[in-house]
Amino acid sequence: MSRKLRVGILGATGYAAAELMRILLRHDRVEVTALGALPQECGPLKTIYPEFAGRLDLNVEPHDGASLGALCDIAFCALPHAVSYKFVPGLLAAGVKVIDFSADYRLKTDGLYEKWYGHKPDAENLAHAVYGLPELYRDAVKGARLVANPGCYPTSVILGLAPLAAKGLIRPDQVLVNSASGTSGAGRSVKRDFLYCEVNEGYKGYAAGGHRHQPEMAEQLSRIAGADVSVHFQPHLVPMDRGILSTLWTWPTKELSQADVTTLYRDMYDKEPFVVVCDVPPSTKHVVGTNYVHVCPVVAQGKILVFCAIDNLTKGAAGQAVQNMNLVCGFEETKALL
Amino acid sequence: MSRKLRVGILGATGYAAAELMRILLRHDRVEVTALGALPQECGPLKTIYPEFAGRLDLNVEPHDGASLGALCDIAFCALPHAVSYKFVPGLLAAGVKVIDFSADYRLKTDGLYEKWYGHKPDAENLAHAVYGLPELYRDAVKGARLVANPGCYPTSVILGLAPLAAKGLIRPDQVLVNSASGTSGAGRSVKRDFLYCEVNEGYKGYAAGGHRHQPEMAEQLSRIAGADVSVHFQPHLVPMDRGILSTLWTWPTKELSQADVTTLYRDMYDKEPFVVVCDVPPSTKHVVGTNYVHVCPVVAQGKILVFCAIDNLTKGAAGQAVQNMNLVCGFEETKALL
Amino acid sequence: MSRKLRVGILGATGYAAAELMRILLRHDRVEVTALGALPQECGPLKTIYPEFAGRLDLNVEPHDGASLGALCDIAFCALPHAVSYKFVPGLLAAGVKVIDFSADYRLKTDGLYEKWYGHKPDAENLAHAVYGLPELYRDAVKGARLVANPGCYPTSVILGLAPLAAKGLIRPDQVLVNSASGTSGAGRSVKRDFLYCEVNEGYKGYAAGGHRHQPEMAEQLSRIAGADVSVHFQPHLVPMDRGILSTLWTWPTKELSQADVTTLYRDMYDKEPFVVVCDVPPSTKHVVGTNYVHVCPVVAQGKILVFCAIDNLTKGAAGQAVQNMNLVCGFEETKALL
Amino acid sequence: MSRKLRVGILGATGYAAAELMRILLRHDRVEVTALGALPQECGPLKTIYPEFAGRLDLNVEPHDGASLGALCDIAFCALPHAVSYKFVPGLLAAGVKVIDFSADYRLKTDGLYEKWYGHKPDAENLAHAVYGLPELYRDAVKGARLVANPGCYPTSVILGLAPLAAKGLIRPDQVLVNSASGTSGAGRSVKRDFLYCEVNEGYKGYAAGGHRHQPEMAEQLSRIAGADVSVHFQPHLVPMDRGILSTLWTWPTKELSQADVTTLYRDMYDKEPFVVVCDVPPSTKHVVGTNYVHVCPVVAQGKILVFCAIDNLTKGAAGQAVQNMNLVCGFEETKALL
Repeated sequence: MSRKLRVGILGATGYAAAELMRILLRHDRVEVTALGALPQECGPLKTIYPEFAGRLDLNVEPHDGASLGALCDIAFCALPHAVSYKFVPGLLAAGVKVIDFSADYRLKTDGLYEKWYGHKPDAENLAHAVYGLPELYRDAVKGARLVANPGCYPTSVILGLAPLAAKGLIRPDQVLVNSASGTSGAGRSVKRDFLYCEVNEGYKGYAAGGHRHQPEMAEQLSRIAGADVSVHFQPHLVPMDRGILSTLWTWPTKELSQADVTTLYRDMYDKEPFVVVCDVPPSTKHVVGTNYVHVCPVVAQGKILVFCAIDNLTKGAAGQAVQNMNLVCGFEETKALL
Repeated sequence: MSRKLRVGILGATGYAAAELMRILLRHDRVEVTALGALPQECGPLKTIYPEFAGRLDLNVEPHDGASLGALCDIAFCALPHAVSYKFVPGLLAAGVKVIDFSADYRLKTDGLYEKWYGHKPDAENLAHAVYGLPELYRDAVKGARLVANPGCYPTSVILGLAPLAAKGLIRPDQVLVNSASGTSGAGRSVKRDFLYCEVNEGYKGYAAGGHRHQPEMAEQLSRIAGADVSVHFQPHLVPMDRGILSTLWTWPTKELSQADVTTLYRDMYDKEPFVVVCDVPPSTKHVVGTNYVHVCPVVAQGKILVFCAIDNLTKGAAGQAVQNMNLVCGFEETKALL
Repeated sequence: MSRKLRVGILGATGYAAAELMRILLRHDRVEVTALGALPQECGPLKTIYPEFAGRLDLNVEPHDGASLGALCDIAFCALPHAVSYKFVPGLLAAGVKVIDFSADYRLKTDGLYEKWYGHKPDAENLAHAVYGLPELYRDAVKGARLVANPGCYPTSVILGLAPLAAKGLIRPDQVLVNSASGTSGAGRSVKRDFLYCEVNEGYKGYAAGGHRHQPEMAEQLSRIAGADVSVHFQPHLVPMDRGILSTLWTWPTKELSQADVTTLYRDMYDKEPFVVVCDVPPSTKHVVGTNYVHVCPVVAQGKILVFCAIDNLTKGAAGQAVQNMNLVCGFEETKALL
Repeated sequence: MSRKLRVGILGATGYAAAELMRILLRHDRVEVTALGALPQECGPLKTIYPEFAGRLDLNVEPHDGASLGALCDIAFCALPHAVSYKFVPGLLAAGVKVIDFSADYRLKTDGLYEKWYGHKPDAENLAHAVYGLPELYRDAVKGARLVANPGCYPTSVILGLAPLAAKGLIRPDQVLVNSASGTSGAGRSVKRDFLYCEVNEGYKGYAAGGHRHQPEMAEQLSRIAGADVSVHFQPHLVPMDRGILSTLWTWPTKELSQADVTTLYRDMYDKEPFVVVCDVPPSTKHVVGTNYVHVCPVVAQGKILVFCAIDNLTKGAAGQAVQNMNLVCGFEETKALL
């Protein structure tokens, strides 16, 4: 077997990065060689995440793109939105391929990134970035230097609706997304709202005025549908660590039976290694800790409800990132993900 | 002070009954004197619910309506749907007033109960039953012999939309209800799906084909709006003990500003003792263990989203039942509920 | 009825203070009139704790002892250890009675407070402070100007062992305390260790080198036993909001049957309004939200294990404080606590 | 690569079996080929555990030992205590090697099994069964036909104390074990006590009169220490899915510094692939989902406290079973477990 590829991770102290390390420890073609974070967050990994004691003996260092790029063959950039774009050019310049977790390279529509994030994107690299949803863009991902790993909510929404959207079967003005996420979606930032006693035994909506994942959903669904799809998106916070369920409300453009809809979904997904079409609405519990998507379309009262469950840290972040890395590097797509 | 009223409870082993006993222990005008349940569930209350040891020293006995009615002045019937109607006539015949927790006396529309529950209702008593939502029907409740205590989901939905519905401001064909409930909503029945390890760390939708609470919502909202309102309702299960949040999606019949909508809600609710109009979407955590309703309407993307949080066991069941008892008995409406 | 006593609370933004307000809202002889906290934590109570919206319309202000004392008849000082003693003298000087939640007035043994807290105590007021455990010191509490409200862990330990200790029935060198607490015990301070995703689905010990509650337990048990009792204390953190269970391991000085031990506990506690002697080990769930203590002694393998469950925020803090206030003010001891 | 070994599982519907299947799906030298359970529990695996839809397409069938044995090369027997011994002889007779999860082949001391389980053991096979704790008996496991996979609590206790016990450094009459387990330890049996709303937000002790894991701990510790060790064991139930923490209280036979003790533990465990000696008390959260043991000895107040954390379903059951299978089959010991 050829030597292992060296992997670097920026933003190594966050929950998505920790999940990424868990997965990569099971991957026999790569080894994690460098971890970067803000100076004030650096230190031995085992004090930052005690679970890695004895498993991954590295220090988290205050790297920039260039310094991390010099230590690895492929880099994961697990930094926040509007931070990532400061590090990605340095990584690419160092000649490494990059899987970026932020929104900084996802929105291709002119002006859309600037509208939601308040500054201009890294246009040069945005131009060649590939949206890393393998179920839709597998071939493009294989040749990418920079993969924009999809957001967690968008992954659940786009995969949940793609079979209908691709056939022009949903009314593009009536796509309602009611999502709920485990608390790891908020990251490891230390804020009162995310203390145990604030979150536990409570359920609430947030970002009622508009959430930054909405334009990503709309852009992708419009691309799939070949028409402007406007998405109404409302996220909620659930007292659990991990998992997203999106309950998608759509109205069909023509009458469809349950059998019609099930067939559509099976046709699109039965050969996908990570998408399972279910007969009953899934619980997030069935996918937590895995890279799987459980999707269940239900015809009811004239509408099509679709339930789509993923693990926000896995298929919604680190697992999908490894799936993308596998494609980029020519490994088996499912390696370390089964 | 006059002697205390004697209270009996049928279905005393369920979670709603336990919450009822907790509340009644703080009520200085009544005392719980008789508890009834199925024969196989009977026994000392303190072995069924150890929390009542030293607080309420009663046995749960296999009462029917007549035998329980003979031991009390007012009865709460905390039995399941399609069971309650077998006991209520006996209680009424015994001359006691009844607050019923089931759906058996809620649906007034011809044929609607039979359609959803598969048998004919107790038509005689249904005719004089009063739907026990004090914010809408306070005066009628005061004179009732039989109060149909509203369902937990319907309480959150009806109160969440009443200010808009009453003014004809919502499109009656586009009322979408996305609700999520703590697990006590499933009752204390011993089923694998409700084991700790099945529910914990998971979130899911259920009853995707239609839930029995939907006709109750539709009937009441239609009554308030003076027009047929069709409700699309999708419930979810949250890994927490208690609490319901309904996220209500509506489209206004004319353009309304946030200020317009907030004013509408404040006008209807500011004098209500248990309804709070909030500026930010509420967490169920803010209402758990109380009889309060936190409601927050938000104008966004051409629609009006309303978040409405209650405790399913309190305002959604036992608390509202005590509020109704207070009205029926001429006590202060908020007694034992603050 | 005479006018209501005015109550002030310092440290009003913490979880114990919130629980205190919840209880006092049900108390018909007092009203909360003033809330104090550090300047950076002040603001409308309803933004700090949304659950009080519409129930307690007050601002939290940057009070010191004198300014708060001027606005109330009785004050609760819910400040941290080593902070409280800076505020209590001002409150007492203002002529109000004080219930203090901190350790600052609990330790009477010479030098003990200084050893654990690193500075001298407020000796003047320590001299007249009464340790507020009504089951042991009810009469003294009635006459107190300053009540030192016991710690949460010590309450569970002292009440768990008092019947044995008082009769000299436990070996004073072999008292092992294995306690576990819900996360609210850590307060509302914003630290990474108390984020939801750090606490949830995990259980751990902490303070293995020694915890500040240990000397309080030892001092009180020694006082009850009339001999030096040395306590080995190990606390743990449980992923739940509230509740403490202490599992107490002791060896009897003479052979005792299960019946002997049960009788001892019943003799001491059967007339206590808040202590229940149980036949089976209690869950914290049975006491959460109440001021009750569930205690269960079990004779096994030559030792006496005692399980003692309380709610850390209620009997372990705010509930016991109200019990003490009721005694100090001459109200019924159980008022607002049933 | 040689053909994959065929694996069969009896008791396939329990939580330990589900964890076993999760692990085996990542193991590239074996494939699961047969699943057995009681007739009333049989059916497609994907309806029993929806998480396996699309990953393991098997039916659970009503196998006995002989019929399952005919379909596999190695069998895991994940049946309850006092059931397993009825199936193991058939499996062995079919010529397959067996890893048994129950207590039926663990206790070698004469009469001990009968005392705790009320009937005679399968003496013939008990004689050659090997206690499958690789850290102590690695070589014996390699040659075994029947491995008695250790209990979850005993694994945490034995590994927690082995370094001290092996050197005769603990007083054999003073070993106190205070353990706490996540709820999956109770299995998937449908009982009211394990409903979500009974377990959630509660913590309690159980089996105060004696727990069946105690003799296993005592037998093994006595064997290691070469002297009769009597263990006082008290388990507790924690509201979380997975994880065990044992807090072990011991008194040393001679004075030991923290450095002495740490060195002892590191000497024994630093070459072990799955045991990590920690500087601070571990959370179960650090080991959940892994086969790791985090152990932390602390010298305090004249005693040695040891905290030992494992995942009850992994190192406490299925992970350790796979570790044993790897040894039995000559695979890399850590395969599928990193």
